Amino acid sequence: MRELPETGPLADAANQVGSLDEDARERARERHDRLTKPPGSLGGLEDLGAHLAAISGACPPPVPRSPAVAVFAADHGVVASGVTMWPQEITALMVETFVSGGAAINAIARAVGAEVHVIDVGVAADLDGMGAVHHHKVRRGTANLAEGPAMTRSEAIAALDSGALVAAELVASGRDLLVTGDMGIGNTTAAAALIAALCGRAASEVTGPGAGSDAATMARKTAVVAAAADRARRHVDPIAVLADVGGLEIAGLAGFVIGGAAARIPVIVDGVITLAALAVADAIVPGVAAHCIAGHRSTEPGASAALAHFELEPLIDLRFRLGEGTGGCLAIPTVVAAARVLQEMATLEPPAG
Amino acid sequence: MRELPETGPLADAANQVGSLDEDARERARERHDRLTKPPGSLGGLEDLGAHLAAISGACPPPVPRSPAVAVFAADHGVVASGVTMWPQEITALMVETFVSGGAAINAIARAVGAEVHVIDVGVAADLDGMGAVHHHKVRRGTANLAEGPAMTRSEAIAALDSGALVAAELVASGRDLLVTGDMGIGNTTAAAALIAALCGRAASEVTGPGAGSDAATMARKTAVVAAAADRARRHVDPIAVLADVGGLEIAGLAGFVIGGAAARIPVIVDGVITLAALAVADAIVPGVAAHCIAGHRSTEPGASAALAHFELEPLIDLRFRLGEGTGGCLAIPTVVAAARVLQEMATLEPPAG
Repeated sequence: MRELPETGPLADAANQVGSLDEDARERARERHDRLTKPPGSLGGLEDLGAHLAAISGACPPPVPRSPAVAVFAADHGVVASGVTMWPQEITALMVETFVSGGAAINAIARAVGAEVHVIDVGVAADLDGMGAVHHHKVRRGTANLAEGPAMTRSEAIAALDSGALVAAELVASGRDLLVTGDMGIGNTTAAAALIAALCGRAASEVTGPGAGSDAATMARKTAVVAAAADRARRHVDPIAVLADVGGLEIAGLAGFVIGGAAARIPVIVDGVITLAALAVADAIVPGVAAHCIAGHRSTEPGASAALAHFELEPLIDLRFRLGEGTGGCLAIPTVVAAARVLQEMATLEPPAG
Repeated sequence: MRELPETGPLADAANQVGSLDEDARERARERHDRLTKPPGSLGGLEDLGAHLAAISGACPPPVPRSPAVAVFAADHGVVASGVTMWPQEITALMVETFVSGGAAINAIARAVGAEVHVIDVGVAADLDGMGAVHHHKVRRGTANLAEGPAMTRSEAIAALDSGALVAAELVASGRDLLVTGDMGIGNTTAAAALIAALCGRAASEVTGPGAGSDAATMARKTAVVAAAADRARRHVDPIAVLADVGGLEIAGLAGFVIGGAAARIPVIVDGVITLAALAVADAIVPGVAAHCIAGHRSTEPGASAALAHFELEPLIDLRFRLGEGTGGCLAIPTVVAAARVLQEMATLEPPAG
C-alpha cells in the first residue's frame, strides 16, 4: 500500500497533480490539421505539441520562455562495494564545476538558453560555502545499499520534499519549462535497482556501464543490482523501495517531477537516473509519468527499459551517457518549437473580422 | 565527364572547396577526452564537434552566433503528369506565408533564433512585388520532366550560380551557420529521380508519398521517377543529370551547399529535396557532401537512401516530411551545443600560469 506523508511539499504537490487535459490534446490535434502544412507532416513535433496542450490544459499551449535545468547531486555509499571506477570525490568536484560554469551541462544550457540550478541533496562533502547551490542536504551520502537500507524513510521523504519544493520555487519565480539533471558517483547502480524493481526487469537487463566500467566492475555491479532489486520487490510502498535501494538525488528528482506536474509545467526528463526517479514518482502518484517529456534515449539499458515501461518516446538519440541533464537540455528547443508551431503558424481558415 | 562552367559564382565556389581538416578533427577528439566528463559520454555530439572542427579547420571550432535558413522555391512542370495531389499554386502561396511569418519554418526558426531567407529560383508566379524575397528566378517552373528535359543546361547553371551566390552573400553578411530549405509542389518527384540516378537505387526504393499521395498518384509518380532515372543514368555530367530530371530549387540548393563548403561554414541539410541537391553537388564537387551536417531523417525513402549513400548520420528523427528546412532548423541548437562544448567546457589539465 502507498503510504504518503500527510503534509509538506511532496504531499502538497501530490495532491495537486491533476489529470492530463485530453480535450486540450484533441483540440491541438485538430488545430494541427488546419495549419498551413500537410496534416501530420511534422510527425513527432505534432504529438509533442498535443502533449504540451494536455499538460498545460490549454490549446495552443503556452510557449516556454524561461527554461531551467535542476541538477540534483548526492553521494552513494554503494561505491564501497566497487560498482564504479570513479572516486566518490568526483561528485563534489563536479558540483564545483557546475557552479563555475565549466561542465557539459553549462555549455549545453547556454546553447539553449536555460538556467542551471544545482541542488545538494546529499553530497558527501561540505558545500555550505557555495552560495550558488540550493542547500537541501539530507545526509552526507547514502549508506551502502548492498549491505542494508540506503536511507531511512524519513530521510527519503526529506529528499522528496526538497525536490517538490525546488520545483515549486522555480515555477513561482517564473520558470516555465523544467529539465531534470543529476550528479552522483555510483548512482546508476541505485537507478538500475529501482528500475528493475519498479518496471519488472531482471538486473541483467537494466545494468549498464554508467560512466565507464571494466568487466569485473560490471559483474560486481550487476550482482549488487540483482540483490537490491530482489529486496526492493518485497516492499509495496514506493517510498520504502526508494529508502531501501535508492539515492538522495533520485528522491529529489522524484519530488521534482511531481512538483512540475502539479504546476502543469512541462518537465523534460533526462537519462537513466531521472527515469528511475520517474518510476518512483509514478508509483507515488500513479500517472505522473505521462505528464513528462522524455528528452533523449541514454545508452544505459535501464533508460530504454523505463522509457518502454512508461511508453515515452524520446526526442533525441545521440548516444549520451553523461547525465547532468545534458540530454534533457538539448531537447528544450524542440519543446519550444512544438509550442510555437501551435501558437504562431497561420491556419487555412479565413481571417476573422 | 564533369563539365563545369569556367566562371561565375558556382565555379568560384567549386574552386574554393578545400579538404576537410582531419588534423583539426583529431585535435577535437583529443580535446574531448580531456574535458570534464567521461570520454565518449556525449556520443554523437562529440562526433559532431569533431566534424565542425574539420569543416572550419579550427579546434575548438567557432560557436555559431548567426544562423540562417535559405528556402529555395520553384515550380515543377511534372505536376501535369499527376504526381501530386496538391495544386501548383501552393508554391507561391507558401512563399507568401514564409514572407508573412506564418509557416512552420518561421515558427521553428524563431524557436532556434535563425533568420529565414526565401529565394525564388523558379516559382510559376510573379513575385517581383515581394521585397523580402531574394529574386533569382531563372524561369517560371521547369518543363515536364516526364516528357523531356526539365530545363536547359544554361538554366541549370543559372540556378546553381544563384545558390552559390546566396551562400556567399549570407556568409559575407555575417551568417555563420547555414540551413537548407525548399518549397516546390512536385519536387519530391524530381528529387527521387536524382537520388535514384546518382545514388544507384531503384525508383521503387526512393519514391515516397511526399506531402501525401493516394495509391493511384503513387503509382504514376513511381513510373515517372523510374523513366526519369533511366534517362538520367545515361548522362555522365552531373549538370546534364540535373537539367534533364531536376528542379530549379534543387539546383539552387546544390549551388548553396557548395558555396557553404567553400566558405568552410557548416551547412545543415534538411530532407529529401536537399539530399537530392547534395547528390548533385557531390557529383559536381566530389567530397562536398562530407562538409555537410544531416539535420534530420525525413520519412521519405529517398532521404534514407541518400543519407546511407553519403554515410551521414542525422541528428534528429521526428518523422518530419514537410521540407521548408524545418528538420534542418531544429538541429541548429545541437550544432551550437557541439561547438560550445568544445569551446567552453573546462579541461582536466592544470590551469596555465
